[in-house]
Amino acid sequence: MTRIAFQGEPGAYSEAAALRFAADATALPCRTFDEVFVAVAGGSATLGILPMENSIGGSIHRNYDLLVEHELPIVGEVELLVEHCLLALPGTPREALRRVYSHPQALAQCELYLRRLAGVEIIAVYDTAGAALMVSQGPRTDVAAVASRRAGELFHLEAIATGIQDFADNRTRFAVIGRTPAPAETASKTSLVFSLKSTPGALFKALAGFALREIDLTKLESRPIRGRPWEYLFYVDVGVSRETHECSRALAHLAEFARWVRVLGSYPAWVRERTESLIAPIGD
Amino acid sequence: MTRIAFQGEPGAYSEAAALRFAADATALPCRTFDEVFVAVAGGSATLGILPMENSIGGSIHRNYDLLVEHELPIVGEVELLVEHCLLALPGTPREALRRVYSHPQALAQCELYLRRLAGVEIIAVYDTAGAALMVSQGPRTDVAAVASRRAGELFHLEAIATGIQDFADNRTRFAVIGRTPAPAETASKTSLVFSLKSTPGALFKALAGFALREIDLTKLESRPIRGRPWEYLFYVDVGVSRETHECSRALAHLAEFARWVRVLGSYPAWVRERTESLIAPIGD
Repeated sequence: MTRIAFQGEPGAYSEAAALRFAADATALPCRTFDEVFVAVAGGSATLGILPMENSIGGSIHRNYDLLVEHELPIVGEVELLVEHCLLALPGTPREALRRVYSHPQALAQCELYLRRLAGVEIIAVYDTAGAALMVSQGPRTDVAAVASRRAGELFHLEAIATGIQDFADNRTRFAVIGRTPAPAETASKTSLVFSLKSTPGALFKALAGFALREIDLTKLESRPIRGRPWEYLFYVDVGVSRETHECSRALAHLAEFARWVRVLGSYPAWVRERTESLIAPIGD
Repeated sequence: MTRIAFQGEPGAYSEAAALRFAADATALPCRTFDEVFVAVAGGSATLGILPMENSIGGSIHRNYDLLVEHELPIVGEVELLVEHCLLALPGTPREALRRVYSHPQALAQCELYLRRLAGVEIIAVYDTAGAALMVSQGPRTDVAAVASRRAGELFHLEAIATGIQDFADNRTRFAVIGRTPAPAETASKTSLVFSLKSTPGALFKALAGFALREIDLTKLESRPIRGRPWEYLFYVDVGVSRETHECSRALAHLAEFARWVRVLGSYPAWVRERTESLIAPIGD
């Protein structure tokens, strides 16, 4: 039985991502991202799941840092449409609402919609699913939560509105971590982190090994390293397994030019088409 | 008199960034980022200011999109330490607090601190400075706001705690936009956006013009273009004025390989040292 550790409570978006990755898995709630790593390393979970990148907000640097700190490999990835719903007790009309609860991040993503709700107080709680649970427990009937469709199902709430985020196409890419690398024959993508001295042409030279072998880059991002003014960290995803001859040659080349390199994992790429068919239309 | 349009209310972080950019400027509040562009284009403001990138959360893709949509050049940049303070009426002890108001984004960034405040309700309002204003107006004396030091000064509030964000080094880089490009002789940095077909080596070829001329890249980021599965957008900053011979040759080279290129602006780079000396220590 696969157990996937995620940060949050049952009904959280990370839980939905875990179940999208493996529909028959059991999702294991953790309080923090650090605890997700500990659960996987210690064996209480088979896999862990971490949000890495959002289509509106960009890369979540913090989780890249944690992947570098810990030694667990990325073994897969999932993409999820973050579709926020306004959830209330069945039969509650929108006009009756006086309070809306959710995680501040979700409240920020639904600003345009929530600002239009006149006479409603917006209360921050540090968990979207926890907000849904509070609403389900009553006794107040004039309250709603901003949370996932799945949280609504879990806590028997009705969606007064769905897809209420400011930007319809709000997607998050999650990395799945494990104790042992994904089987080499299934991998089609490899994630790397490396650092370079900021000298002109340094990145160009470092990437030459991939370009000359016609290895496709599917992500490339630089990030200044705090406290080391002229040094940069790079996140790179390449569309090939690390076990291929070309990739291992390109990695050897990279190691010559970089100050350090870490292969975060080599794993099957998430196929977008598979995702789309599972997503309910927005605003239905 | 320089008037700088910013999104938010007086006391907002964007206003602090505007005043850091030009201490003698007047900051002009706007409701949305779009309105910032409109104010600059229409002449009611001389300059506008936009958050582009955060040290925890990554690039703010939305504002890159707006820079591409509108035709206004980047003429400068500013970096700001985002130091959240817990502000209350003078003399309020922390134990007396029953409610804390702030923008959901600020509430999300102070999660660890705010979770520890027992018996306090966290209320989201869509403006940090507006939260400070509410607190200053009373009549309740058991309330506080999470907002900038400057908001505290503006509304005569006392900081119960400073630097309460989860990650001390929470910095935001802002772009300053104008109607006409910065004077060529002052520019030391150029920001570009371009798109490439995702074919192996495409980026390497596109960047060759910069590397071969020893032009330093200070930012490079790829972003998938939604709805065009195999096409990517790239953000690139180079450490040189676009008017130099090398840069204009490298741009001509880039134009041969890219599907399209937009120079967002060429402007004086923000000097970090200048910033540091202006920042008060955290937790003082």
